[in-house]
Amino acid sequence: MEYKLVVAVREDLGLSKGKLAVQVGHAAVSCAISARAKQEKWYRAWIAEGQRKVVVTVEDERHLQDVAAKARSLGLPAEVIQDAGLTEVPAGTVTCVGVGPAPDHLVNQVTGSLKLL
Amino acid sequence: MEYKLVVAVREDLGLSKGKLAVQVGHAAVSCAISARAKQEKWYRAWIAEGQRKVVVTVEDERHLQDVAAKARSLGLPAEVIQDAGLTEVPAGTVTCVGVGPAPDHLVNQVTGSLKLL
Repeated sequence: MEYKLVVAVREDLGLSKGKLAVQVGHAAVSCAISARAKQEKWYRAWIAEGQRKVVVTVEDERHLQDVAAKARSLGLPAEVIQDAGLTEVPAGTVTCVGVGPAPDHLVNQVTGSLKLL
Repeated sequence: MEYKLVVAVREDLGLSKGKLAVQVGHAAVSCAISARAKQEKWYRAWIAEGQRKVVVTVEDERHLQDVAAKARSLGLPAEVIQDAGLTEVPAGTVTCVGVGPAPDHLVNQVTGSLKLL
């Protein structure tokens, strides 16, 4: 089986390249910690396979929260990231959500229709 | 004390926004794992403070390897990331290096002169 982590980023914020990379980094570490605690088998398989990651976009915060809710309803790790807000966006702005690491076919049920960044 | 993780990305590769974010995600997770295993106190403090991350640039692979070597000489977590090479760059291309998480003043000795992405 193959495992992946998908991070869905809000496209309406127009984040810079560096800011976006930092948010994806937050999501990746938070999801890794969450999976390690709750689904250790998935976490270990994902690491062993080279920790595959994919970045996609969502229109706005409402769609982002829909993604998080759907992921949780399927029992997948789902971490909503808020920015510390030192630059670019107000403190507490929701920037992205990480789904997984989990088996591809489960993650695809949540993020399969979202377009790649 | 404050802790941070700095990821230095090669600017000569001209990576896309999505590709760059994925590489930074790899570095963040790899550095978190490395710190957790070797410097657990730093890892826990960094997480407790909100896992601060900064992305900077290096000119090319030679400068990137210099950063990694200097970080290791100071006993800091340093993870050199190679791309799986499915798109944009050949498989095995070194894309970035993560330094930390570690105390700010130590990380600054390695990455303090590099410019923000």
